[in-house]
Amino acid sequence: MRILGIDCGSEATGFGVIESDGRSHRSIAYGVIRTKTQEQFPQRLRSIADGLDRVLCEHRPQEVAVEGVFHAFNARTALKLAHVRGVALLSGARAGLPVAEYSPLEIKAGVVGYGRADKGQVRMMVQSLLGLRETVSPHDASDALAAAICHAHAVAARGGGLQV
Amino acid sequence: MRILGIDCGSEATGFGVIESDGRSHRSIAYGVIRTKTQEQFPQRLRSIADGLDRVLCEHRPQEVAVEGVFHAFNARTALKLAHVRGVALLSGARAGLPVAEYSPLEIKAGVVGYGRADKGQVRMMVQSLLGLRETVSPHDASDALAAAICHAHAVAARGGGLQV
Repeated sequence: MRILGIDCGSEATGFGVIESDGRSHRSIAYGVIRTKTQEQFPQRLRSIADGLDRVLCEHRPQEVAVEGVFHAFNARTALKLAHVRGVALLSGARAGLPVAEYSPLEIKAGVVGYGRADKGQVRMMVQSLLGLRETVSPHDASDALAAAICHAHAVAARGGGLQV
Repeated sequence: MRILGIDCGSEATGFGVIESDGRSHRSIAYGVIRTKTQEQFPQRLRSIADGLDRVLCEHRPQEVAVEGVFHAFNARTALKLAHVRGVALLSGARAGLPVAEYSPLEIKAGVVGYGRADKGQVRMMVQSLLGLRETVSPHDASDALAAAICHAHAVAARGGGLQV
């Protein structure tokens, strides 16, 4: 199964596409969609949506996994992030794909094994699980791949038997 | 100038299109985009986006006005609303239009004259300003028309001299 993971952010939205049978995973593509800070917010949302649509069109994932919004931190930041998530969920829905949502804690637990892992540990584990020699950079891309891996594990745990 | 006002909601998103010279306003169209509660959230966002795109395509507004999210009320509700707003801002941006944002207080003050007006008072004033004989229903549509009128007043106050 081919999965697109998305890590939302108004300045940098990470994406990561993997191919997985639920046990072993392979990286297809990853990267980050950056927006210009001088641009108005609606225009930035457009850049993110256009970028995600290009990834969906080019790599044809079958499912999408998106990190959820945390209430815990700054309310203004959470609200801004929720706008970007709305756009990410829309891209998945318009592509006709199932969209799964995971909390940051679920993603860390699903990849590293425990929810309190830091970004560096997540990145190390992502690289190891995907057999990548290069350092996945920036963290947004690594977090997006982590969301995709978390979803692959979740589907496999449900006995989904991922199709490759 | 032709203005589209949007009042975001995950269950019902109101829209209202007016034609205005900054002093007198005329209603072109108004209504509400309803989503099915049994549908998953990404699918509901898609219904809202598709509905707004249809309104934009049919009525060709030149500018868009959207009500801002309030931090004040329930955090979960505010986050959900922010997802819908992201989709609304995206629709405006993809149509290549300027998108203005106003707080609920600004909209009420801009239409009724004071920010503490209730929904009923806003509706009465919207109907009066647009010379409508019928009762604008539901409130979501009336609030969307109010956002459009607020924007028309704001542009005129800046000395924009609206083009009709």
